[in-house]
Parts: sequence; C-alpha cells; structure tokens
Amino acid sequence: MQTTFTIETNGQGLYEFTRQVTAWVAGSGVGDGLLTLFIRHTSASLLIQENADPDVQGDLRAYFARLVPKANDPAMAYLRHTTEGPDDMPAHIKAAMMPVSLSIPVRGGHPVLGTWQGIYVFEHRDAPHRRAVAAHLMAD
Amino acid sequence: MQTTFTIETNGQGLYEFTRQVTAWVAGSGVGDGLLTLFIRHTSASLLIQENADPDVQGDLRAYFARLVPKANDPAMAYLRHTTEGPDDMPAHIKAAMMPVSLSIPVRGGHPVLGTWQGIYVFEHRDAPHRRAVAAHLMAD
Amino acid sequence: MQTTFTIETNGQGLYEFTRQVTAWVAGSGVGDGLLTLFIRHTSASLLIQENADPDVQGDLRAYFARLVPKANDPAMAYLRHTTEGPDDMPAHIKAAMMPVSLSIPVRGGHPVLGTWQGIYVFEHRDAPHRRAVAAHLMAD
Repeated sequence: MQTTFTIETNGQGLYEFTRQVTAWVAGSGVGDGLLTLFIRHTSASLLIQENADPDVQGDLRAYFARLVPKANDPAMAYLRHTTEGPDDMPAHIKAAMMPVSLSIPVRGGHPVLGTWQGIYVFEHRDAPHRRAVAAHLMAD
Repeated sequence: MQTTFTIETNGQGLYEFTRQVTAWVAGSGVGDGLLTLFIRHTSASLLIQENADPDVQGDLRAYFARLVPKANDPAMAYLRHTTEGPDDMPAHIKAAMMPVSLSIPVRGGHPVLGTWQGIYVFEHRDAPHRRAVAAHLMAD
Repeated sequence: MQTTFTIETNGQGLYEFTRQVTAWVAGSGVGDGLLTLFIRHTSASLLIQENADPDVQGDLRAYFARLVPKANDPAMAYLRHTTEGPDDMPAHIKAAMMPVSLSIPVRGGHPVLGTWQGIYVFEHRDAPHRRAVAAHLMAD
C-alpha cells in the first residue's frame, strides 16, 4: 500500500506530520508490518525528533544554521553551486547529513514510535515549498 | 516477525549488539529477507561501524563531543532546551545527524554485514539509560 | 529479489549509480514494491543528492573535508585510530554522519526518486576502492 504526503513549508525549520502518518496507517487495516517514508527532495530532510518541547525544534534549526552557514558567509567562500541563492548549497549539505528515508515497524496498527517521537520534515530552504513524502506500508 | 532488543547504556559511547541481532535472525528460520531496526528514542542513535579496533569507537565519541559541545559551553549559549541538563539538547542534535533506522538485507539466514561492520547503539546522554530497539524481519 | 552492485571508486567524492539501480528494478518485473540499498563498508556512504549540477558534488566533498579534517591536521590531534592513514578515521566519522542504508518505494516499475535525485556512493577514502552495495527488492 502506498500514498504520498504533502507538507507545505514556510522557511527553514521542522514541520510535524505524525498525525497524517498514523491516521493513514490506522486506516489501512494493517495490524503488524513495516512503514517506510521517503522524501523526494535534496534540500529537505525527514527527521524523528522530540515533539514535547517546541524549543527542541528551534534549537535544531539554530544549530544546523551555524554548522552549515549560508553561501554568502565568508567561511563558505569555497562553494561553487550558488546560483540558486545562498541557502541552496547549505540545504543540500544538510540533506546529506539527515535522513532521506525512515523505516518504522508497525504493531497493532501503530508505528512503534517512542513516547516523545514525532515525524517531521526539516525544511532547509528559506522560501515556501511543497514537499512530497512517499509512503509505503507492507503487512507482515 | 518482530521483536525488541533492550540495550543498557552507561554514559556516552557505542554499545554493540550485533550478536543479539544475528542470533535472532538465525533463529527465525528466515533465509532471505529484509531486517529493519528502529530506535525508539530521540537522544540515542543506531550506528553501523567498524568493530575491529575499539579506538574507532572512542574517536567517534570524541569527535561528536567536540562537534556538538554541551549546553554549558559558551559556544552553545543560544540553546534554549536546557532544563534536562547540558547533555540533553546536544543529544537531540546528534540523534538528528545519525540513523534512527537501519535496513539490512538478509541472505542465507544472515544480515549481509561487511567483514568489519558491527551494529551499535550510540548513547548520547551521560546518565545510564535502557534503550529499546524495535526489530522487524520479513522473508522474501 | 536481491543483488549486489559494485562501484569502483578513485578517491574521495560522489559516484553515481542511479542507472544501474533503475535498470535492475525495471528488469525485475516488480511493479509496486520497496527497494532497499545497504553499503557493506564503514568508510563510504550512500547518498541521495542532486544530479543536475556537478558543482553540488564538489561542494559536498569540500564541505565534509573541512568538517572532518584529516588526522594529521592539528585540530584532530586527539584521534587514536590512525594506523591506516590520516584519511581513515575521518572516513569512519563521515560514514557515521551519512546513510548506510536507503529505502525507496517503487511504483510502476520505478523507484519514486524526485526529478533531480540521484543515488551515489560517497567515497571517504583517498585510495581506489571497490564498494559493494547490497540491494533488496520486494513486490507489494
């Protein structure tokens, strides 16, 4: 069983879509199985992170913005792929460091997420984007 | 087929559980198939790494401790999620940079790990934790 | 269904093998399903990245070479696993930060890669290597 989730983003940061995923799995009739998510982009990532304190999401964004400065930062003067804007190549770099796919076992109709685990798109571009996440669900 | 592996950790570092995984696969009766591991936490990671020289594990720990300093380091003064201790937000950051799930083909009853590949939990917190890794195994 | 792709590398950088993968999937007779790739090494990674502008690949190599300097760089004097050369431990570190496995849904006989997404081996060692990528394909 397959579907595609669409996540509208509005600048760098984390966008949770856990409920869309768990609702789709619950409605599928699959009890035990395996869920796979795959983001069809090279400038955004999938992430499993804590969804209790929103500061975690802000701190993640702040950390990676410092780890991978924009192309107009002097520290990044060596970058050559800059025609699509100073946030473009840093987005590709972040996309290399964080997951493009996630695989989550399903038991009793639910992905086995831990208590505080949420599923996010981590948008790495400044401009709004519509992100497509392909989903695959197989029954045991 | 599904199970959960429990790994007791005692501070930051790598904890190998390759034998638990390969024993479970070997005992399952599955010849060819696909193995999936998923860690149910946001402050520890799964890692496939060299298991020959223990210095590799120490160097990995040392590198990531420098790349993501604790929240009481002046370089990290911008962090806001600090109520759970100075090692907490760095743990979430490291968990974003390293795998939460692993998918490994199985052939002839064995995960197709390379000669030196071991399967680890990378604990990012200072205090002892009990980590749960959900496992899924399907036959071809 | 399983196979192994062999990718010959010649120094640090990205080596695309998208066509080998899509040809194998197309020839398998599988319409809808799930593709899994797993690299059997701890000093090279799998990567999904933009395959339009080759500068992206050069910039990725340049960024990670700076993020993880070689062991003979004074900043890395704390490394202990250095007997296999100054590029060895940095290779293990990069392999921890980038994917060892990828899972991609398959629809209509094709992996659902985005328009610009290519599949690469990211070689982290200086010397030429022959890299093995195990592949698994299941039909829905």
